[in-house]
Amino acid sequence: MKKINIAEKLSLFDDHWRQKVIAKSNGQLIKLAKGIGELTWHKHDDEDEMFIIHSGRLVIQLRDGNVELNPGDMFVVPRGVEHCPVAEEEVAFMIIGPSVTSAQSDWI
Amino acid sequence: MKKINIAEKLSLFDDHWRQKVIAKSNGQLIKLAKGIGELTWHKHDDEDEMFIIHSGRLVIQLRDGNVELNPGDMFVVPRGVEHCPVAEEEVAFMIIGPSVTSAQSDWI
Repeated sequence: MKKINIAEKLSLFDDHWRQKVIAKSNGQLIKLAKGIGELTWHKHDDEDEMFIIHSGRLVIQLRDGNVELNPGDMFVVPRGVEHCPVAEEEVAFMIIGPSVTSAQSDWI
Repeated sequence: MKKINIAEKLSLFDDHWRQKVIAKSNGQLIKLAKGIGELTWHKHDDEDEMFIIHSGRLVIQLRDGNVELNPGDMFVVPRGVEHCPVAEEEVAFMIIGPSVTSAQSDWI
């Protein structure tokens, strides 16, 4: 049991669209990531994916429209829903879900 | 699917130590609360309780020492661990867990 400072953890990495696990609670992984540019369209059939924006702006493209998220905004992409995150400038955000859904799963 | 602004949701209530549900993801409730003063010592046998501080300072007293949380800090109180939150001045925070663990469970 140790407290975690989100900004400090974000300072430990610079790569994009690769989730870093910082904690686990009730089987959910609490992950941080940074992104710039566009990811790919995808969906997660078995899990909801919750985003909380730390800095920057993240647009989550959905098939029925875009959701623009700024710092302090959060959004849940329900399971099975196709989405494609895009950021014009670098965005830093938290993702909470039961598994790592992008390439890297380091604990930091 | 609607985005949620955390500060805006926090502006909707003023009562203390009563969780307000703002979203659900993978069976977890995302809740907001404010507090001032001391709660009571308690534990949750079946769930971890994750705190993320929005504003103010929250001290989580544990039987083996205190953890002081400031804005941007997070902490997971593992299931079964006795704790007692206390705040000298008003604190606003997010709690994530499978159920509502304080008196009120309004969705806001």
